[in-house]
Amino acid sequence: MKNIAVLLMGCGGVGRQLLQHIVSCRSLHSKHGIRLRVVGVCDSKYLVVAPDVFSMELSDKLLLEVCRVKSDSSSLLTLSSSGECQVFTDSELTKKIVDATALLGTGLALVDCSASSETIGVLNRAVDLGCCAVLANKKPVTSKMEDYDKLVSHPRRIRYESTVGAGLPVIASLNRILSSGDPVYRIIGSLSGTLGYVMTEVEDGKPFSQVVKSAKSMGYTEPDPRDDLSGMDVARKALILARLLGSRANMDSIKIESLYPEEMGPDVMSVEEFLDKGVLLLDKDIQERVHKASLNGNVLRYVCVIEGSRCEVGIQELPKNSPLGRLKGSDNVLEIYSRCYKEKPLVIQGAGAGSDTTAAGVLADILDLQDLFP
Amino acid sequence: MKNIAVLLMGCGGVGRQLLQHIVSCRSLHSKHGIRLRVVGVCDSKYLVVAPDVFSMELSDKLLLEVCRVKSDSSSLLTLSSSGECQVFTDSELTKKIVDATALLGTGLALVDCSASSETIGVLNRAVDLGCCAVLANKKPVTSKMEDYDKLVSHPRRIRYESTVGAGLPVIASLNRILSSGDPVYRIIGSLSGTLGYVMTEVEDGKPFSQVVKSAKSMGYTEPDPRDDLSGMDVARKALILARLLGSRANMDSIKIESLYPEEMGPDVMSVEEFLDKGVLLLDKDIQERVHKASLNGNVLRYVCVIEGSRCEVGIQELPKNSPLGRLKGSDNVLEIYSRCYKEKPLVIQGAGAGSDTTAAGVLADILDLQDLFP
Repeated sequence: MKNIAVLLMGCGGVGRQLLQHIVSCRSLHSKHGIRLRVVGVCDSKYLVVAPDVFSMELSDKLLLEVCRVKSDSSSLLTLSSSGECQVFTDSELTKKIVDATALLGTGLALVDCSASSETIGVLNRAVDLGCCAVLANKKPVTSKMEDYDKLVSHPRRIRYESTVGAGLPVIASLNRILSSGDPVYRIIGSLSGTLGYVMTEVEDGKPFSQVVKSAKSMGYTEPDPRDDLSGMDVARKALILARLLGSRANMDSIKIESLYPEEMGPDVMSVEEFLDKGVLLLDKDIQERVHKASLNGNVLRYVCVIEGSRCEVGIQELPKNSPLGRLKGSDNVLEIYSRCYKEKPLVIQGAGAGSDTTAAGVLADILDLQDLFP
Repeated sequence: MKNIAVLLMGCGGVGRQLLQHIVSCRSLHSKHGIRLRVVGVCDSKYLVVAPDVFSMELSDKLLLEVCRVKSDSSSLLTLSSSGECQVFTDSELTKKIVDATALLGTGLALVDCSASSETIGVLNRAVDLGCCAVLANKKPVTSKMEDYDKLVSHPRRIRYESTVGAGLPVIASLNRILSSGDPVYRIIGSLSGTLGYVMTEVEDGKPFSQVVKSAKSMGYTEPDPRDDLSGMDVARKALILARLLGSRANMDSIKIESLYPEEMGPDVMSVEEFLDKGVLLLDKDIQERVHKASLNGNVLRYVCVIEGSRCEVGIQELPKNSPLGRLKGSDNVLEIYSRCYKEKPLVIQGAGAGSDTTAAGVLADILDLQDLFP
């Protein structure tokens, strides 16, 4: 039985779902000769950890208790009374994680399901110590180039599929293509379910403001829809893909088209003000652009384009009859052009969001590392 | 530097392309710390092998010479004069391959790019000895269940991505989904470029016979187009996917719809007779089916359907507006339905044929095994 120790950072929706998947896959994984031993779980405040990470683990009961506590918005501190774990906080939290990585070394997969930019330090130390790293968190792989280089210095020991397109096999497929010497010269993709939905709805003539509001009411957007409309999230994904293709770009070298002007930004107006007044002023411009595109037989899509040194995200006019043009609703779509997929791209399409799907991608990443474990 | 010994069986189009890819990727792979050491190459008649597979390899010059000789339809025997290899034939051929697998054990990737059903013996022995196996050849994985079970008894040591959809990341993606405990309950796909082309062309009103003839003249079909029209090739791919999902099916348990009746089979009439007379008699029926489907807003596609214990290949009426219905030309398309991809499937689409693409898939498979090599 192959033994993979897992230490999970971040137990929001994705982290919790991952713990549930791990527990419910026990018999499947044991059939494949694998045992995932969760030795610790932390959020930004507390680390819940087995008293001896080398020989002990958190029980399935405790893992499900972590899920319950977190989904009740309670504190992980309440678990200290269980008797089967230790709970650390503040400076001790990071120290204990570093201790665990040093102790377990090549036997540990450090999993980052947080949304924090502060995990990069421990991740880099862990990779140095021979640990594997699995990320759903985009921040560490979109940080400055120096951090990125360290993080991927042992490329076989890191996976981050779920940072782009949730569980969709985007990075795994790109890695296959690249390793076979097939040069990828162009990627174009719709990588935001929210913006995919918005752009296909305005195509049918609905006012932009109305579509944004209904997207918010259906829970498709972040609490502040401008977090989606800014394009920053898509830009992070674009940067991850661009770096995979060898680019040395940073976040600030990406050309990003925001769907609202600076004077409607969060520093200037509240969410309510934006939704009640600001966004209405954007309707006419979008409507005109949609109309102009349709005269050319095209539609508008909010996409990332990576081609040579070019990496940009924003609205593009695309043929109605291309995979991206045919896209409806919140699916993600990626078109990959290479020597093998020259005239017609390799297309990967499907749900690119949701904590179930994202966590499934993280779990697939952990299992993909299994040959590195003793 | 990680050292992967490669022994290649089959040097038709795919095998030759693989050798060329290996040679042209030298610097890329060396950057990743990998060295592919080709120790032997065989076709059905001759094995060209390094005098000592443990310490020697075939030079890049000799590998390219193998490609030249084979594309000239010459015999590999001519290479015996090069002085840097040994050439074996007949019973000695298999014996020497078995010797090499025994000698190299876990250091060898045995690669099957042949179309033979006779490689399964050496493949099974190699897997027993700890070798890795990479297949573009569908026969060994569609052989009887007993053989299949042996072949995949160490699932981490075998890859066969290129048996389905050439280089498209179909099996890799399915394995990711399955390993994350996301149960795949339905696969529907168009896995024959030829039949994809035929079905989309008849949709536009062209007679079936005319479409088959132009497909043949454009080189889209096998020399005898009935080899495509029989559906046998699609059935093999369907069986591979069904078994991946856990089915215990055999070739003879798959329901296969042939696009020509038995009385037009190769035992009854020649290719010329079929193309000049036979196929014309099929036009009316196909035309009627196309028409009937279009009345329902549907189109006809030749697909494989795998769902529960059901595994069948044949013509299906599908919504014009589904990924399969929108398919045009010779691209392969696969729709995967699972818990994570429930209402809208995960779709993988792209060129599913061609020796360049197929060989790229084989090479990606070899590199995907790298963590198993010392």
